[in-house]
Amino acid sequence: MIGKLNHVAIAVPDLEAASATYRDTLGAEVSAPLDQPDHGVTVVFITLPNTKMELLHPLGEKSPIQGFLDKNPAGGIHHVCYEVEDILAARDRLKAQGLRVLGDGNPKIGAHGKPVLFLHPKDLYGTLVELEQV
Amino acid sequence: MIGKLNHVAIAVPDLEAASATYRDTLGAEVSAPLDQPDHGVTVVFITLPNTKMELLHPLGEKSPIQGFLDKNPAGGIHHVCYEVEDILAARDRLKAQGLRVLGDGNPKIGAHGKPVLFLHPKDLYGTLVELEQV
Repeated sequence: MIGKLNHVAIAVPDLEAASATYRDTLGAEVSAPLDQPDHGVTVVFITLPNTKMELLHPLGEKSPIQGFLDKNPAGGIHHVCYEVEDILAARDRLKAQGLRVLGDGNPKIGAHGKPVLFLHPKDLYGTLVELEQV
Repeated sequence: MIGKLNHVAIAVPDLEAASATYRDTLGAEVSAPLDQPDHGVTVVFITLPNTKMELLHPLGEKSPIQGFLDKNPAGGIHHVCYEVEDILAARDRLKAQGLRVLGDGNPKIGAHGKPVLFLHPKDLYGTLVELEQV
């Protein structure tokens, strides 16, 4: 069911410094920061040949990644995102097998303009998993 | 400098259960467990269309992931691995820019039979990064 790894998201306390490290030190292709007020984050995309990394920094007062940074002030890997063809079919299959979908259980329009949902990390061995319909 | 994302490694407390979840619930292609005594881990490979995930479980008494599981008993994302063309050139470039290489600073033969090294997570915003020469 899960397809490509769409991205790995890394929460960072200093977006400018982390961008510079990935661009200048690791030599990766790094985008300009993009504010996503609907998602409470500012994002920098790191384009790799086969997938992408996303650096996330809180935006606004109710950022969904603020709690993670409070617990991990240096930053850390926040979630991975797998692509699925049909997010409602995926959700129903996963719920039927006992996995918990975060929020109200319905897909939202994600940061890439496509339907996404998040699965509870306690059901996936400590890994927060996003599914994105592509 | 960094190329493809070679893999994302997830440490899990129960390899059999985690394998079953990824195979039966998430519908991914999951390998049999492979003991890697030289690396202190048993690994299950999850093949995705564009990269792979690796489930890691401690093997033996000095496993390098035991401390991580002690701190994260439910499991969690342990590291990401980027491919590089020339690991010595990469190491020298990174050290010249102040990044710390774990261990004695020299590449080791990694779990895939290729030279690898690990970079200190404090220099990379809380992310443990492996580089693998391909």
